[in-house]
Amino acid sequence: MKVGILGYGNLGRGVECAVKQNDDMELTAVFTRRNPEDVKILTPGVNVYNVKDVEAHKDEIDVLIICGGSATDLPKMTPEYTKYFNVIDSFDTHAKIPEHFANVDKVAKENGHIALISAGWDPGMFSLNRLYANCILPQGNDYTFWGKGVSQGHSDAIRRVEGVKDGKQYTVPVESALEAVRNGENPELTTRQKHTRECFVVAEEGADKEKITETIKNMPNYFADYDTTVNFITEEELKKDHSGIPHGGFVFRTGVTGWNNENKHVIEYSLKLDSNPEFTSSVIVAYARAINRLHKEGVNGCKTVFDIAPAYLSPLSGDEIRAHLL
Amino acid sequence: MKVGILGYGNLGRGVECAVKQNDDMELTAVFTRRNPEDVKILTPGVNVYNVKDVEAHKDEIDVLIICGGSATDLPKMTPEYTKYFNVIDSFDTHAKIPEHFANVDKVAKENGHIALISAGWDPGMFSLNRLYANCILPQGNDYTFWGKGVSQGHSDAIRRVEGVKDGKQYTVPVESALEAVRNGENPELTTRQKHTRECFVVAEEGADKEKITETIKNMPNYFADYDTTVNFITEEELKKDHSGIPHGGFVFRTGVTGWNNENKHVIEYSLKLDSNPEFTSSVIVAYARAINRLHKEGVNGCKTVFDIAPAYLSPLSGDEIRAHLL
Repeated sequence: MKVGILGYGNLGRGVECAVKQNDDMELTAVFTRRNPEDVKILTPGVNVYNVKDVEAHKDEIDVLIICGGSATDLPKMTPEYTKYFNVIDSFDTHAKIPEHFANVDKVAKENGHIALISAGWDPGMFSLNRLYANCILPQGNDYTFWGKGVSQGHSDAIRRVEGVKDGKQYTVPVESALEAVRNGENPELTTRQKHTRECFVVAEEGADKEKITETIKNMPNYFADYDTTVNFITEEELKKDHSGIPHGGFVFRTGVTGWNNENKHVIEYSLKLDSNPEFTSSVIVAYARAINRLHKEGVNGCKTVFDIAPAYLSPLSGDEIRAHLL
Repeated sequence: MKVGILGYGNLGRGVECAVKQNDDMELTAVFTRRNPEDVKILTPGVNVYNVKDVEAHKDEIDVLIICGGSATDLPKMTPEYTKYFNVIDSFDTHAKIPEHFANVDKVAKENGHIALISAGWDPGMFSLNRLYANCILPQGNDYTFWGKGVSQGHSDAIRRVEGVKDGKQYTVPVESALEAVRNGENPELTTRQKHTRECFVVAEEGADKEKITETIKNMPNYFADYDTTVNFITEEELKKDHSGIPHGGFVFRTGVTGWNNENKHVIEYSLKLDSNPEFTSSVIVAYARAINRLHKEGVNGCKTVFDIAPAYLSPLSGDEIRAHLL
């Protein structure tokens, strides 16, 4: 199958790497909002085009993977390109998923395309685990923890503080909270009890470090509701020790069964990822395979991971997966 | 939807409890090979019939849940009852799944029914996690660990040893092996390195305990390849401390991404279950909902968990699951 990538940042590059790992796929083209000549990609022999020329390539591509941001890019881009392509995105603004779904569904049905939104790990694999576990244990509690990992939004917030030259923020789940959930204690956890926030900050020369620390710790929405630690490091240390984009997290469902709800069960799913964008891309690429197949079967409209039978994700036949993975 | 249960042991009783937790389901009838008058069920007002009368009830039941053993019952029962009903079973002899699938598929298609085989947690939820993780990380390694939990087969083997009055066996994953996998070390593990076996034995009066211990530890297939501990306890202790049927386990996939496979990822799914049969039943009941819906859409033939889009498991609408679980 022929894959196109729209947007070549960390996620687009991750998709390029994931396509390379899957023998039944090839990268056909990359589209960028930048000057195509300024964008150097990894795959030899593949052209980079300006996004304004994307429509001309609509018959060359089975699935277009849209690698844009959820805040402003995807709400416009995904419906727009669904006119011409089967598409997949990683829209992750949970509260706006219903609206995005409706917009994309309309265009997909009008144009006979299939679009899968919100692929990745949260939303994505975490959502799947929440759904499966809720269906199996209807009487129970859900818990999601994130980290240890880099939050882009919180790192950006640090960098906007006066006197900060650069910085990185890690979201860290509280170990004792994880243990309480894992032990089936069904704790009620406040924001502060679930996660801590670790900041690594490079201060500008002569900056007031105490003031920076206080400003960060008291920042509403981002840090004020958490136990936050601020560590000052050098630019070299930041580069050496904090240049990766790791992430991960935990999804739990704890529930009861039995005639009198006498038996307890704990379902736990966790991810430990060296590269958040590359793992997200790997999920997206597996779902790209699925929607390509479904489109060939005549399916169209907007879909999410909930609508895709798992067998469609695999390059193997039904016989093979039943024999080796069931 | 109307549910029938065929076979009323631990699993059948677990299905009965799970149906009670799901408001969109009701138990219509229980079928048994025993004298129906000897079988007391929990749900008031529901009749117990002999299994030879099952065909007479074919129009009263949307899905018949077949709660038989994999060794001899299900290979015969599932194809037989697929003639009259949509059915679901928990066939768990992994090596014989392809054969069972083919037999059931033929009957299901001939009779316009849908049959889902091998529902539960392994096969079942563990299989799903193996499939999803293999599709996301095509370059990687799979690990499955079982326990801590009661193995029925190994407990039966203990009880056949001369001088043993009763006994129970626990399969226990080796903590250091779990840690090595979790750390992404990709260890090559022997049978002995993955699991230990803990036996709790009630000896007959005057029995040779040393001989019992040696016989158990050296039993081929069951114990000889494992580090096994044998603990002698009283009948009262066995009843008090070991009457439950807990189980669980861990499925891992560790893999790499990136242009030069430079980033590592660990996906872990684990279950900690107070009651193996009740959890298995809870999975089965969720899939019963799914196949009932699919049958109404005109789908027939044999299916596995791989073929079912997750949304079909939920009593909630697509809008609801997108809004609350994605």
